Amino acid sequence: MNTQAASQGRVGAAGDGERPSLAQMYRATRRFTEDLCSPLATEDFVIQSMPDVSPTKWHLAHTSWFFETFVLRHVSSDYRPYHPAYNYLFNSYYNAVGPQFPRPQRGLLSRPGVGEIFGYRAYVDEKMFELLERRAEDVSASLASVIELGIHHEQQHQELMLTDIKNVFAFNPLRPAYHERVPSSGIAPPMLWVAHPGGVVEIGHEGERFCYDNETPRHQVLLRPFEIASRLVTCGEYLAFMEDSGYERPELWLSDGWATVLAQRWRAPLYWERDGDRWRVMTLAGMQDVDVAAPICHVSFYEADAYARWAGARLPTEEEWEILAVGCPVKGTFVESGELHPIAADAGQAPECKQMFGDAWEWTASPYVAYPGYQPAAGAIGEYNGKFMCSQMVLRGGSCATSAGHIRPTYRNFFAPAARWQFSGIRLAKDA
Amino acid sequence: MNTQAASQGRVGAAGDGERPSLAQMYRATRRFTEDLCSPLATEDFVIQSMPDVSPTKWHLAHTSWFFETFVLRHVSSDYRPYHPAYNYLFNSYYNAVGPQFPRPQRGLLSRPGVGEIFGYRAYVDEKMFELLERRAEDVSASLASVIELGIHHEQQHQELMLTDIKNVFAFNPLRPAYHERVPSSGIAPPMLWVAHPGGVVEIGHEGERFCYDNETPRHQVLLRPFEIASRLVTCGEYLAFMEDSGYERPELWLSDGWATVLAQRWRAPLYWERDGDRWRVMTLAGMQDVDVAAPICHVSFYEADAYARWAGARLPTEEEWEILAVGCPVKGTFVESGELHPIAADAGQAPECKQMFGDAWEWTASPYVAYPGYQPAAGAIGEYNGKFMCSQMVLRGGSCATSAGHIRPTYRNFFAPAARWQFSGIRLAKDA
Amino acid sequence: MNTQAASQGRVGAAGDGERPSLAQMYRATRRFTEDLCSPLATEDFVIQSMPDVSPTKWHLAHTSWFFETFVLRHVSSDYRPYHPAYNYLFNSYYNAVGPQFPRPQRGLLSRPGVGEIFGYRAYVDEKMFELLERRAEDVSASLASVIELGIHHEQQHQELMLTDIKNVFAFNPLRPAYHERVPSSGIAPPMLWVAHPGGVVEIGHEGERFCYDNETPRHQVLLRPFEIASRLVTCGEYLAFMEDSGYERPELWLSDGWATVLAQRWRAPLYWERDGDRWRVMTLAGMQDVDVAAPICHVSFYEADAYARWAGARLPTEEEWEILAVGCPVKGTFVESGELHPIAADAGQAPECKQMFGDAWEWTASPYVAYPGYQPAAGAIGEYNGKFMCSQMVLRGGSCATSAGHIRPTYRNFFAPAARWQFSGIRLAKDA
Amino acid sequence: MNTQAASQGRVGAAGDGERPSLAQMYRATRRFTEDLCSPLATEDFVIQSMPDVSPTKWHLAHTSWFFETFVLRHVSSDYRPYHPAYNYLFNSYYNAVGPQFPRPQRGLLSRPGVGEIFGYRAYVDEKMFELLERRAEDVSASLASVIELGIHHEQQHQELMLTDIKNVFAFNPLRPAYHERVPSSGIAPPMLWVAHPGGVVEIGHEGERFCYDNETPRHQVLLRPFEIASRLVTCGEYLAFMEDSGYERPELWLSDGWATVLAQRWRAPLYWERDGDRWRVMTLAGMQDVDVAAPICHVSFYEADAYARWAGARLPTEEEWEILAVGCPVKGTFVESGELHPIAADAGQAPECKQMFGDAWEWTASPYVAYPGYQPAAGAIGEYNGKFMCSQMVLRGGSCATSAGHIRPTYRNFFAPAARWQFSGIRLAKDA
Repeated sequence: MNTQAASQGRVGAAGDGERPSLAQMYRATRRFTEDLCSPLATEDFVIQSMPDVSPTKWHLAHTSWFFETFVLRHVSSDYRPYHPAYNYLFNSYYNAVGPQFPRPQRGLLSRPGVGEIFGYRAYVDEKMFELLERRAEDVSASLASVIELGIHHEQQHQELMLTDIKNVFAFNPLRPAYHERVPSSGIAPPMLWVAHPGGVVEIGHEGERFCYDNETPRHQVLLRPFEIASRLVTCGEYLAFMEDSGYERPELWLSDGWATVLAQRWRAPLYWERDGDRWRVMTLAGMQDVDVAAPICHVSFYEADAYARWAGARLPTEEEWEILAVGCPVKGTFVESGELHPIAADAGQAPECKQMFGDAWEWTASPYVAYPGYQPAAGAIGEYNGKFMCSQMVLRGGSCATSAGHIRPTYRNFFAPAARWQFSGIRLAKDA
Repeated sequence: MNTQAASQGRVGAAGDGERPSLAQMYRATRRFTEDLCSPLATEDFVIQSMPDVSPTKWHLAHTSWFFETFVLRHVSSDYRPYHPAYNYLFNSYYNAVGPQFPRPQRGLLSRPGVGEIFGYRAYVDEKMFELLERRAEDVSASLASVIELGIHHEQQHQELMLTDIKNVFAFNPLRPAYHERVPSSGIAPPMLWVAHPGGVVEIGHEGERFCYDNETPRHQVLLRPFEIASRLVTCGEYLAFMEDSGYERPELWLSDGWATVLAQRWRAPLYWERDGDRWRVMTLAGMQDVDVAAPICHVSFYEADAYARWAGARLPTEEEWEILAVGCPVKGTFVESGELHPIAADAGQAPECKQMFGDAWEWTASPYVAYPGYQPAAGAIGEYNGKFMCSQMVLRGGSCATSAGHIRPTYRNFFAPAARWQFSGIRLAKDA
Repeated sequence: MNTQAASQGRVGAAGDGERPSLAQMYRATRRFTEDLCSPLATEDFVIQSMPDVSPTKWHLAHTSWFFETFVLRHVSSDYRPYHPAYNYLFNSYYNAVGPQFPRPQRGLLSRPGVGEIFGYRAYVDEKMFELLERRAEDVSASLASVIELGIHHEQQHQELMLTDIKNVFAFNPLRPAYHERVPSSGIAPPMLWVAHPGGVVEIGHEGERFCYDNETPRHQVLLRPFEIASRLVTCGEYLAFMEDSGYERPELWLSDGWATVLAQRWRAPLYWERDGDRWRVMTLAGMQDVDVAAPICHVSFYEADAYARWAGARLPTEEEWEILAVGCPVKGTFVESGELHPIAADAGQAPECKQMFGDAWEWTASPYVAYPGYQPAAGAIGEYNGKFMCSQMVLRGGSCATSAGHIRPTYRNFFAPAARWQFSGIRLAKDA
Repeated sequence: MNTQAASQGRVGAAGDGERPSLAQMYRATRRFTEDLCSPLATEDFVIQSMPDVSPTKWHLAHTSWFFETFVLRHVSSDYRPYHPAYNYLFNSYYNAVGPQFPRPQRGLLSRPGVGEIFGYRAYVDEKMFELLERRAEDVSASLASVIELGIHHEQQHQELMLTDIKNVFAFNPLRPAYHERVPSSGIAPPMLWVAHPGGVVEIGHEGERFCYDNETPRHQVLLRPFEIASRLVTCGEYLAFMEDSGYERPELWLSDGWATVLAQRWRAPLYWERDGDRWRVMTLAGMQDVDVAAPICHVSFYEADAYARWAGARLPTEEEWEILAVGCPVKGTFVESGELHPIAADAGQAPECKQMFGDAWEWTASPYVAYPGYQPAAGAIGEYNGKFMCSQMVLRGGSCATSAGHIRPTYRNFFAPAARWQFSGIRLAKDA
């Protein structure tokens, strides 16, 4: 049993009785992280193709540092850290823990080597197993919640490992492939509008299952009637925008977006390349033809917003999205099922929202801010989410690279509006 | 009678019968712009001390270009523009109108000279007077609303002329003064908390009086109970934050804010300078001692947010602010009354909100986004507000440099979170 | 009689008896500086179109600061400087004198205004006249040599005022003209090769007439036989290089030069613009057609070097240049005679070098380094030349904008190899 | 026998009969390159700690590309390159060969991996061995000279591999060591002045042994009498400069040097670190105490020049250096003998120049320009040296990291004046 399997099926529908133990979740998550490395050569672990990207070996170490720092050091005053310099090297951004090696230079360090970092992981795992399995009585409820946070933290980094290595490989003129799974093509079903009457609704997380602090408190919001698209925008639809001079018409763009189009010379989504008459796209399976039926991916908020304006629609707010997401089916990660998959049309049914989870993160119209009454966790862990609540946009859902156990309707992902290296796509909405 | 006088008194309380005509408003506004230049030497009109700042002569020309482009060219197909290059030189950011001379280089043009630009203003004014006074029948309702927009646009630039020339003078080691009006000091009254019960309330502009498109549509929002401070944070209170190592404690700051503190070496608000034991501050009246009773000013959103966190409070949302602002008294601009003025304590009264208008723009916790159902104006004028709805924060109220006629409870000002050269201050709020 | 007139005719040929007094030279030079400002509007004095350029008012003040600092302060301990801040604002680069206002920000200061700076000049002039005319006995030989240095320093700035205002005007889309003197066109004479047998020769300055320290000591060098072109390269010849894809062929360029071509997108000399089929060029008389018979100008060392390589030749060394320059005629500045003038062919004569002085500064193949045995002057004035002896190339001759009294065969001008805003041109040489 | 051994002893003194064959030289050089990699982990081959540095695997590939491009492709029209993309990836700067992968991004490529690159080397070696050993008749004299150039080219890269990996390790907070050979300390002998009478002398390379084109033609120069120091400046002597505020006194520095001191916050040579009361230095053997008797190393030209000025001396010109270098003994590389070694005092002898070869490259006062009559080689190989003759300074001698076979009195090394990551030191000179 693994973490991913644990919450297959309808989100929120799994009974508590089926939940794996903390030790099982820890073990499965740690193992899956390492499984993700199996296609990589030693050299691939070292590279940082741009400041947003971290080297694979950094992800491997940082997720271990998290358990070392927030669990092992706290549970035992005589815990001996694996290496005195790692607290500096592998602290991401926790000022309360101490200074950090500069992020844009993470790819300039050949040491510690990959082997040493796997040694670090093994050392931390051994201590964690001992704690979880032989000293379970030492694990208070609050400590357990920190461990669960660490597990979800590592799941986040699993997705980042994939987005980052994709960027590393896409930058390389040799265009290496991470795996061989080319998704089979299909035909996208018609896009329908799913209506919602608005009114006072409740959003945000509640209950005992895990969530991040930024998903709380659950609270009421007042929505106006709206409609939301039954599926994601496809590559074919986005191509129509491009062919209608979407990237040359400033009136379609936010001011910052247009400035970015000009400065970065954007002409297509990230990883797309013109090859004579057709468009090719870098995927984890190497260069492929663009699949017109697949969801558009690797677009920025600016592009999502411009596309929506061109389409006579808008992006949904995060509240609108969440209220329709509850109960939608979750897809597995690409690791089992391929990267970006078109969905089958189900003719004759009432429209319902599809592709809400497991295809592409969906840019919303909502800036990332605190929910009313939000309180960050105390101490260093309070830096996890709250301090980023500025100049970022919320994305909802989950992508083909998201571990399934990491997906839930209340999840608030967030990135800067110009970011494109995540698996980020577009769903339309409009006022009713 | 001038525009400023027009809406003195309670905001929203003036009867329609008292309103000046469009021609009167135009004439008064244009004259006041030029009055603001009277303390300046020719050389002062030319300088751009940083990319955010525009030269005074650019403001003078751009506000005229606005009328020329959106009124005079539209009303008459045989209108002869004053100079063929001005459409390029003085278009700020309207892509639909044509290309723009690069903003960061506005201070690198000695020509057209100041005299020529006053000539431009006179030319435009003459054509506008002719339209407004002798061809009033050509002024349709929609054209009248564009003219009114141009008047309010010019009022915005009046404030920018003051913030920009202050920056120009502050940059100069000679520290020239713009005027001689040093506000008299006082004692700040105690800060009280004004409570609001929350619930579904309505915000946004409605009615016939002028507003920008971003203030509409009026709509309902659901608020939780909250409390808001009865006055702005003072320099003395902010000094306590500084003395408590406010600028050295990352836990008080948003991540982007802390990065800015480090990169810009912020240690105090903009224009503050340490002078031995005391703090001095550059004002429009030259260097002055910091007045501990006066509202803190020239802080960024990051500083406002950090101060609020340090104070155990938060910033108000724009909705919270607006619901308490209706009916509050408006102060005149500094031009009459001095720059930043402490308010008198009115002992023994029930707490009410003061300094809502005319002291300092108040950073809110709200990112600048569209109201539900927002539709930008059609055509080039639609670029006025809508395309900036990303990565900026809303400020409310109005500063000592805001023309009084430009102040209203629904007004949504917006700047990037690191901006400090505006007259921007802090009001606290908290959950009830 | 003015300084310029003083050394008309053959360089070095003027008898000492004809030399003007120091007071006469001072007066004439100071007046000529101000005469150069007569075409300018107040706004033109303030602008700095790029970091290399200084505002006109800065030149006016800095040349006065030079006399104040190195003469007036030294001669009298109770000299009262005109303004306490000017030592900071108008010190260019003399670390021994004190800190300097940052060079790239000289154009961000509106104050002191133009009037105040003319007041500064008048104040310094009055003190200098008093010294030179009424207290001549206080002027020691060493002080006299500092004053003479100050005069030549001001002559240098006279040329910079012209190159800088030309840059300011060329940057402006309105393309203002500094004056109306369009040089008449002509036909360039054939380019002939003037041979020199090489051997041990002497170069460098000797004697009582003024020179900068970098022209000394006079010393012997060993030259191989060489040939040098009888005139400067013309615009027509340079056009042939451009039409032969000169700017697209890396093999013609130094590595740094090619990197600059790519980074700056150079396609032609500075100030040239394509206008349909023809080339236009910005001059002090505004936009003009390129005159194919006129010397090419506003090229960098990189372009001069690439042109020479393309032409199967090389640039002369400064020693080769100097040995042929002695005795060549000096032309007046453009102020009398127009900007860039073609020369008449003198058929049937033995080839001799023409256009050595007064047309365009000539890039040499020589890096700017100390002559053997060079000693910089003691004290702050030692910073005048010596500290720049790195990463710059020597130019020889003198341009149409050089004051004639400032021209001599031993003069070593120097600029960075990418600089183009000076009146810099090309003369070819080759091994015999 | 290896290349290094080949020219042990007096430079230029080895009889032709002792010279190894081209095949022997090729084999020994290629093997030594790979020997230099033996201390490295796979991860170490990938990193580029700054734009000047190249990854070890890039050096390994580029030196092979050189033989592939300039030898194998030329000798056989049906040569099949190892990989079609390598001509783009491993071309350094030869525009005539084709476009180049951007230098500052060499460290962003994980593929081809280290193993693949060793495969590339083996492939090229096999083809080269076949050519050199079995098809020796196909090797014309001109082809032999290109092969010899390739061998010397690879020797240059051997030194760069060491300077670059040193930089990579020094950047890493873990401070890994490349090897264990800590040089034993000693006492520096007194610095004496070796006099030369000047006059017309000959410098430059002549004869059949290998040299680069920039060492030719041999030519006469006229020198003034001068004196040169008998040994390199020591760390102890440089410490005295530091303690005399050498890094805080602008009058000691060239203008560009002082700007660099301020911008880079230089306070000591590269790799020096303050540790309480003492100075530590990063070496190939890890962090060590500074050895006061060892030659100062890792200083820029600016520092060398400032030190010389402080010491009342100057740097030698390259001509002065060369005329005294002929016949001086060559030391082996650090690989045998340790990094930086003090020399023994030989009391009672007439002063002679020591440490001319094999300790540290010596900055000269000479900008890197063409010798009179210099002609670069034809074709792409002409890009080897000539196009860099601008804005660089000549260094002479050879460092502890220079392969001994690569050392000769006429060798002209060159780097930008701010470069410090090479093993570059200081020798003083003065006018007699």
